Amino acid sequence: MTHPFWGNLKPVKYEGPESRNLLAFRYYNKDQVVLGKRMEDHLRFAVAYWHSFAWGGGDPFGNGTFLRPWFNGSDELELAKVKADVAFDLFQLLGVPFYCFHDRDVAPEGKTLAESNKNVRVIADIFAKKQEETGIQLLWGTANLFSNRRFMAGAASNPDPDVFAYSAAQVKNVFDITKELGGQNYVLWGGREGYETLLNTDLKQEQDQLGRFLTMVVDYKHKIGFKGAILIEPKPKEPSKHQYDFDVATVYSFLKAYGLEKEVKVNIEQNHAILAGHTFEHELGMAAALGIFGSVDLNRGDDRLGWDTDQFGMNVPELTLAMLEIIKAGGFTTGGLNFDAKVRRQSLDPEDLVIAHAASMDAAAKALLNAAAIIEDGRLAKNLEERYAGWKGAEGQAILAGKRSLEDLADYVAKNNINPEPKSGKQEKLEAIVNQFC
Amino acid sequence: MTHPFWGNLKPVKYEGPESRNLLAFRYYNKDQVVLGKRMEDHLRFAVAYWHSFAWGGGDPFGNGTFLRPWFNGSDELELAKVKADVAFDLFQLLGVPFYCFHDRDVAPEGKTLAESNKNVRVIADIFAKKQEETGIQLLWGTANLFSNRRFMAGAASNPDPDVFAYSAAQVKNVFDITKELGGQNYVLWGGREGYETLLNTDLKQEQDQLGRFLTMVVDYKHKIGFKGAILIEPKPKEPSKHQYDFDVATVYSFLKAYGLEKEVKVNIEQNHAILAGHTFEHELGMAAALGIFGSVDLNRGDDRLGWDTDQFGMNVPELTLAMLEIIKAGGFTTGGLNFDAKVRRQSLDPEDLVIAHAASMDAAAKALLNAAAIIEDGRLAKNLEERYAGWKGAEGQAILAGKRSLEDLADYVAKNNINPEPKSGKQEKLEAIVNQFC
Amino acid sequence: MTHPFWGNLKPVKYEGPESRNLLAFRYYNKDQVVLGKRMEDHLRFAVAYWHSFAWGGGDPFGNGTFLRPWFNGSDELELAKVKADVAFDLFQLLGVPFYCFHDRDVAPEGKTLAESNKNVRVIADIFAKKQEETGIQLLWGTANLFSNRRFMAGAASNPDPDVFAYSAAQVKNVFDITKELGGQNYVLWGGREGYETLLNTDLKQEQDQLGRFLTMVVDYKHKIGFKGAILIEPKPKEPSKHQYDFDVATVYSFLKAYGLEKEVKVNIEQNHAILAGHTFEHELGMAAALGIFGSVDLNRGDDRLGWDTDQFGMNVPELTLAMLEIIKAGGFTTGGLNFDAKVRRQSLDPEDLVIAHAASMDAAAKALLNAAAIIEDGRLAKNLEERYAGWKGAEGQAILAGKRSLEDLADYVAKNNINPEPKSGKQEKLEAIVNQFC
Amino acid sequence: MTHPFWGNLKPVKYEGPESRNLLAFRYYNKDQVVLGKRMEDHLRFAVAYWHSFAWGGGDPFGNGTFLRPWFNGSDELELAKVKADVAFDLFQLLGVPFYCFHDRDVAPEGKTLAESNKNVRVIADIFAKKQEETGIQLLWGTANLFSNRRFMAGAASNPDPDVFAYSAAQVKNVFDITKELGGQNYVLWGGREGYETLLNTDLKQEQDQLGRFLTMVVDYKHKIGFKGAILIEPKPKEPSKHQYDFDVATVYSFLKAYGLEKEVKVNIEQNHAILAGHTFEHELGMAAALGIFGSVDLNRGDDRLGWDTDQFGMNVPELTLAMLEIIKAGGFTTGGLNFDAKVRRQSLDPEDLVIAHAASMDAAAKALLNAAAIIEDGRLAKNLEERYAGWKGAEGQAILAGKRSLEDLADYVAKNNINPEPKSGKQEKLEAIVNQFC
Repeated sequence: MTHPFWGNLKPVKYEGPESRNLLAFRYYNKDQVVLGKRMEDHLRFAVAYWHSFAWGGGDPFGNGTFLRPWFNGSDELELAKVKADVAFDLFQLLGVPFYCFHDRDVAPEGKTLAESNKNVRVIADIFAKKQEETGIQLLWGTANLFSNRRFMAGAASNPDPDVFAYSAAQVKNVFDITKELGGQNYVLWGGREGYETLLNTDLKQEQDQLGRFLTMVVDYKHKIGFKGAILIEPKPKEPSKHQYDFDVATVYSFLKAYGLEKEVKVNIEQNHAILAGHTFEHELGMAAALGIFGSVDLNRGDDRLGWDTDQFGMNVPELTLAMLEIIKAGGFTTGGLNFDAKVRRQSLDPEDLVIAHAASMDAAAKALLNAAAIIEDGRLAKNLEERYAGWKGAEGQAILAGKRSLEDLADYVAKNNINPEPKSGKQEKLEAIVNQFC
Repeated sequence: MTHPFWGNLKPVKYEGPESRNLLAFRYYNKDQVVLGKRMEDHLRFAVAYWHSFAWGGGDPFGNGTFLRPWFNGSDELELAKVKADVAFDLFQLLGVPFYCFHDRDVAPEGKTLAESNKNVRVIADIFAKKQEETGIQLLWGTANLFSNRRFMAGAASNPDPDVFAYSAAQVKNVFDITKELGGQNYVLWGGREGYETLLNTDLKQEQDQLGRFLTMVVDYKHKIGFKGAILIEPKPKEPSKHQYDFDVATVYSFLKAYGLEKEVKVNIEQNHAILAGHTFEHELGMAAALGIFGSVDLNRGDDRLGWDTDQFGMNVPELTLAMLEIIKAGGFTTGGLNFDAKVRRQSLDPEDLVIAHAASMDAAAKALLNAAAIIEDGRLAKNLEERYAGWKGAEGQAILAGKRSLEDLADYVAKNNINPEPKSGKQEKLEAIVNQFC
Repeated sequence: MTHPFWGNLKPVKYEGPESRNLLAFRYYNKDQVVLGKRMEDHLRFAVAYWHSFAWGGGDPFGNGTFLRPWFNGSDELELAKVKADVAFDLFQLLGVPFYCFHDRDVAPEGKTLAESNKNVRVIADIFAKKQEETGIQLLWGTANLFSNRRFMAGAASNPDPDVFAYSAAQVKNVFDITKELGGQNYVLWGGREGYETLLNTDLKQEQDQLGRFLTMVVDYKHKIGFKGAILIEPKPKEPSKHQYDFDVATVYSFLKAYGLEKEVKVNIEQNHAILAGHTFEHELGMAAALGIFGSVDLNRGDDRLGWDTDQFGMNVPELTLAMLEIIKAGGFTTGGLNFDAKVRRQSLDPEDLVIAHAASMDAAAKALLNAAAIIEDGRLAKNLEERYAGWKGAEGQAILAGKRSLEDLADYVAKNNINPEPKSGKQEKLEAIVNQFC
Repeated sequence: MTHPFWGNLKPVKYEGPESRNLLAFRYYNKDQVVLGKRMEDHLRFAVAYWHSFAWGGGDPFGNGTFLRPWFNGSDELELAKVKADVAFDLFQLLGVPFYCFHDRDVAPEGKTLAESNKNVRVIADIFAKKQEETGIQLLWGTANLFSNRRFMAGAASNPDPDVFAYSAAQVKNVFDITKELGGQNYVLWGGREGYETLLNTDLKQEQDQLGRFLTMVVDYKHKIGFKGAILIEPKPKEPSKHQYDFDVATVYSFLKAYGLEKEVKVNIEQNHAILAGHTFEHELGMAAALGIFGSVDLNRGDDRLGWDTDQFGMNVPELTLAMLEIIKAGGFTTGGLNFDAKVRRQSLDPEDLVIAHAASMDAAAKALLNAAAIIEDGRLAKNLEERYAGWKGAEGQAILAGKRSLEDLADYVAKNNINPEPKSGKQEKLEAIVNQFC
C-alpha cells in the first residue's frame, strides 16, 4: 500500500500512556473529547512537505545526508510524483488530518514561471486526487519567494519592481491552487523581505512595497472568494540579517500602518519566537491580545544556538504553556499545528521521520491534556481574577472608561493619601500548580 | 567656582585633532558649521542626572563603590542641594547645553507623595535659578516609576488601580515641573511596564491600562499647553522579563492601537536597541520611516553581555552609522543626544566623569563630521537612488499607486516573459566608502 | 516552635503524586530507595543562605521589596541571630539535610577583618548548636570576596597584593569555620576574578595570582586535615565582563596549568552553564569526563535573558537530563544539590519561600525517578553501546592504544578501500524514549 | 594576463590616505616600516580559497547566487584548473603574500579517497608552479573533514573507527602536500568534532579519540620534518550543536589533558570568538597568556546574529584592539592574517571580491598603524605597569614565589590592619587614549 521506502512501517495507533512502543501514541487519541472537543479538532496537526520530503539534510558546512529515492533521477517531474506518494504515505502513517506546502517543494522549478506553474499544476492534480482518496486536507499553501537567486534582495521588497511583479504572479498561482485544493489558509513568510545592510536599503520604500503587495493579496482573496485566512509568519532574522516581520507586535504595527489588521493574521513558530527574544507563549498571547492569532508552526529551537534549528517539540511542560495560550485564544478556527520541524541530518532512516512526528504529536497531545486539567483545576484563573479585581471596582472602571484625568487622579491620591502596598506575585506558586499537571 | 569635589578640573575646551589632552575636545567645536548648522545644534548634548550623580556604583553582586560627598549625611534634602551644585558644575565643565532628570534622582522620596513632590519642588527651584545663571536647559524630565517597591508589578500596568493612580499623580507633578523649567520633552520609560510570568498576567488588560495612561498624559500635555514632545523609550527587557515597549516597531504598534501615533515619539537608546536584537541604526531608521523619531539616549552596550551596561559610546564608525540615520531623519527638533551612560563602577575619580563624557562627546562629534563628509561625497546616496530607480518607472509607479492587481502582474510577467536578473548589492563597496570617511 | 515570621506553616510532608497540596511533596519521599540508594542520599538537598535570607529583593532598577523582620534594626548582630533562627526554621520546614553560606550572609561586616571574623564566629557558634539540635549539616561554606568595594577589581586577581592578602585571610577564617562545622566542601566563586577591560588588565599576571591563591588554599586544606572537597564554581560573566572561571573546560585548563587538577573539583550551576553557552547537562557530562565533577547549584536561568536569574528549577524533563548525567558521573560523594535559587522579587510572602523550594525539590525528585526509570529501561545505554561498538574491535583498540600512525591508517584505507557509510544518529528516537519516562 | 573573469581590474596599489579610489590602498603600504618591521611582515595576509572560489553564495534558505565560469561544466578537474588560475589572479591583484586551502576546495572529490587524492595532487602541482612564478606562498593547508556525509557524526570523534581511519588517511595526504608546497602551518578545524545530543554521545570516548588523532598528527609532523606549526581552530558551535574546540581555553584544556600543549597552537577567528561569548582580543590575549598563540582568521561576525557570517572586518577601532594583542603576543612567526571572510551572497560582481579584500586589508593596516602609535605613545603601558606595581614589591614577590601561606597572610593582615582602599580602574580614560589614535 505504502511506497517501499517505508519498509514495513505500519500506521501509528493509540496504545495508552504505558506503551513503550515508539511507533504508537501514548496520549494522542484523536476521538477523545477534551474540554468538549475532539483531540483531533483541538490540535489540527499538519505535516510540512518541505522539511520531510524536500530537504536533503544539508547545512552550511555540509552536503545532504539523506539518500531519498526521489532525489536523484533524470526526470524531475517524475521524481516529484514519487515524492507525493511518499508524502501522503507519511500523512496516513501518522493519521494527521492536514498537510502544508510551498510550491517549490512539490514540483521542480521550470525555465519560466509559466513552466514552473505547469509543474505545480501537475502535482496539485495528484494532490487533489489523494486528498479525495484519503480525506487528508490542505491546511495551507504558500509560495517559495526566497530560494531562487532572483529573490536574493527580497520578493515584494525587492529594489527591482520586476521581482515584485514576478512574486505577485507566483503568489497568484499558488493562491489559486490553494483555493482549489480547499486549503484553509494562505501563508506568507518573508524570508528575504528584510535587509542585509541599511547602507543599500530604503526602509520606507520597502515597507510601502510590502504594504502594497499584501493589499493586492487581500484584494485577490476577496475577488476569488477564498474563505480561509491570510497569515503572515513572523521571523526576526535568517536568512536576512533583519526581517521586516520581526515578531507578532511588528507584524501588527505593519498591518495597522497599511490598514490590514482586520484582514491578516499570524502564523506563529516557536523557533522564530525565541530568535526574536520572546517565549513561544508570549507570541501566542500577544497575538490573541491583538486579535490576530491564526495558526502555529510547531517546532523547537535550541536555546543555545542562534539559528533556526526546527527541531521536533518534545518538552511537554513548555508545550503545556503554549497550549494554555492557544486555548485562551479560543483555539484554532482555520489554523492548526503544522510541524515545521525536521529530523536532524544524522537521522537517516525512514522510521526516524515517523518516530519524530509521532513523538511530537504525543507531546502536544499530552500538553493539551495538561492544559485542560489546569483549566479545569481553576486555581490559575482564580488567581488571575483576584489579582486584577481592583479594576472591576468603581474607580478602576472609571479610569478604563476614560473618565479620569491626570489631575483627577492626583486629587484622588492626595485626598485619600494613597500609598499602595504591593502584594505577592506568587510566581513560584503558580509554577508549582502548573507542575502538578505536567 | 566649582564644588571642591572637582578639584582643579577646568572646563573642557576644543584643541583640535592633534591634541593629546584628555580634558580637551579634538572634534567637538560647538560653533563649527556642519551641513549648514552649528555642531552644538546638531548634537544637542545632554548629561543624565541619574548615572553620574545618583548611582553609587553598585551592581547585583556588590555595593556602591563611589564615595561621593552627597551620598552620606543626616539631611537628605541638603545633600540633594550639594548634588545639584556638583551636577551643574559638570554641565559647565563639559559645556553641554542640556541635562535630563528623573524626579527621584534629584530629591529624596518622602513618606507621602505630597512630601516627595515638595522635595522635588525645592530642587526644581534651584534648577530654575541655575538654568538662568548658566543658560543650560532641560532636555527632558521624567518620573521614576520603577525603583520603589510599590511599582514592582508595574506602574500604569499594575494590577492595582491605586498604583495606576499614584503613578498618574507622580507624572503630573514631574510634567508640571518639566514645563516650568522649559523642558523640551517629557519622557516615559516603562521599566516595570511588562511582566515576569504570563501565569499571573492579563496581557490585554495591561495593554488597555497603558493605552489609557498614555492618553491621559497626552490630554494633559494639551491642557497645559506643553509645546515639547512626549517620548516613549523602548526597551525589551530588564528589569522586567518582558517589557511592553520592546522596540520601536512594538511601540508604534501600541501607539496605533490606541490612536496615539501622531502624539508620541520615541527616545531611542543604543543599549536597548541591541538588547532587542537590533542595531542602533536600525531603530533610528525604523523610527524615521514610521514618523516617530524623537530623541536619543546615547550610550553603548556590550555585545557579549546580556544586560544594560550603559557604557559611554566610543566607537566612531558605529556612531557614524547612527549619525547618518539621524541626519537622514531630519536631525533633532526637540530631541537631543542624552548621555544615558555611566562610568564603570571601578572609575572612582571625579576626572573619570569628565573624561568619559568629553571623550564620548568627541566621538559623537567626529561621527557627525564623518556622516557629513559621506553625505557630501554623495556616492552612498547615488547608489541608493540607482538601486531603486526601477520604482520611478511607469510600472513601478503604477504598482505603488495601487493600480495593479495580482492578475495584472501575472499577465505582465507572462506577456513579457519576466525573469529578473539580480544585481550586486555592493555591501562591501558601500562599507569601504564609509571607511574612507571614518 | 518556628519564628512568628512563618505564621502557621507546617513541615512539608510526602503525600504522593495525586496530592494537590502545594505545601506537600508529591515525589520527594526521602527514604524511598531508587537505584539502590535512599532519595535523600541521591539528592542531598541544601538551602542557600544568601538568596532566601540575605537578599532583599533589589535589582539594578529598584530597591528591595521584601520586608523581613531581620532587615531593619539598630543591632546588626542581633538581627543576624534572628536570621539564623528563621533560616534553620526553613531548613526544618523543608526537611533538607544541608545548607550553605557565604560569611557575609550570616553576619555583618565589621570595621576590620578581625571584627568581621568575630561576627562570623558568633553566628557560627549558633550554627553549631543548631546543627546538633536538628541534625542538619553544612554542605559548604565560602567567603564573599565580591560585595565590598575593596574587591571591585578582583580578590586573588587584584592588582593590589594587599587585596590578595586580605582575601587569603578572609578565606582562612571561613575555611576554619567550615571545617569546625563539619562542612563537606569548601567553595570558591570568583565573581570578581576576571576583568572589565583588557586595556587595564595583565591576563598572565592575574592567572598566576589565581594559581598561587588556589595552591595556598589547597595547601591549607591538607595542613588542617580537611576531608571534604575544594570546589570552584564556573561562571562566564556577571558581575565581571569576563570571568576567569568561564566554564568547566576553562576551569580544568586552569587547574592543569597550575597542577591542581587532582585537588579541586567543580560546583556546577545551571544558570551559569547557559550563560556560558552550554546546556546544564553538558557541563555535568564534561566535568565527569574530566574527572572533576563535585557538586551542583540547582537553579534555572531564563533562556531569553542574559543575566543570572537564579530561578527555581521546575522543568522536569530538563532536570531529568541533568540527573542522568549526575548518575552517570557516579552520583554525589561530598557534593549535593544546593538551591542557589531565589524567589522572584514580587514573591513577598513567607509561604513563597517554602512553596518554591518544595516544588523544586519535587521536580528534582521526579527527575531522579525518571532518570532511574530510563536507566532501568536500558534502551539508551544499549544504543550507546552499539553506536561505539566498532571501537571495541581489534582495529579500534589498536588505534586507541597508540599502535597506529597516520601512515598505517592511510594504508588501511587504501588496502581495504574504506569508504564508511554513515548510520542514523537516532536523536528523535532517543528523545522519544526519554519522553516515555518524563 | 589575468583570466577574463576579472575584466579590466588592475592590481591594487597604495595611493595614500586621501585617495577615494576603492581599488587602491590608503594605508596598506607593504614596505613601510612600523615598529621596526615591514607592514607585509607584520600582517602576513592570506586569501582563503574556499569562500572566494568554492562557495557559490548559497545559504540555508537559498541556492547559490554566484554564476562563476568554473562552477558549471562536464569536467570537474578542468574547472578546478580554471579556479586555480582565477584564484592566483586575485592573490596577485591584491598583492597578498599568502593563501590557504582545504583539499576539497581545490579539487573535486573522487569516488575513492585515492581518486580524491589524485585530484588534489593535480592541482597541487599547478599550485607549486604558480607559487614559483608569483612568489606567493602557502600559509596553511587543511583537510575538509566535514562536508561529506561520511563525516556527519564527526571525523576523529566519529563512533565508527573507519571514519577515524579515513580522516587520518585524508589528513596525511593534505599534510604531505602542505609540506611539499612549503606551507608554514597545518590547520585542523573540527567542525563536526562535537555532538548534536548527549543522548547518543560518549564524551570521554570521543575526547580520547581526538587526543589520539592529534597525537598521530603531531608524530607525523616530526617524522616528515615539517617545520611549521600545527594549529587548532576553536569554534564553539555550528555546524555541531556543541564543538569540542569551543574556545582557546577549552583547546588548552584538551591539549594539556593529552600532553600536547607544547606541540599545537591555535588559529583564532573573530567570528568564532564572539560565538563563544568572547571578544576577539580576549581570545588573542588568552592564547598569548597560555603560550599557544599561532595564527588568525580575520573576519567579522554580526553581533546581532547567532551564526558564522564571516564578513570582511572593517571596524578599525575593533581591529586596533586585536592588533594590540597580536603585537603584545610578539607578532606572527609562522602565522598570519588569513581572510576567512566571504562577500555577501548579494555581492555578485568580480570587483566585489577585490574591493572587499582590499578594504579589509586597509582596515587591518590602519589598525596596525594605530596600535603602533598607541604603543609608541606609551600611556597605556605605563598605566598597566603602575596598576600592578604592588606585585613588584617584596611582599608581592614573596607571594608569587610561593613563600606565603594562608596563615602568613592572615597574620600580615591582622598585624598591619590591612584594609585596602581601591583605586580607579580608569577604563574610560584608557578608551579615550585609544580613541586618540583611531
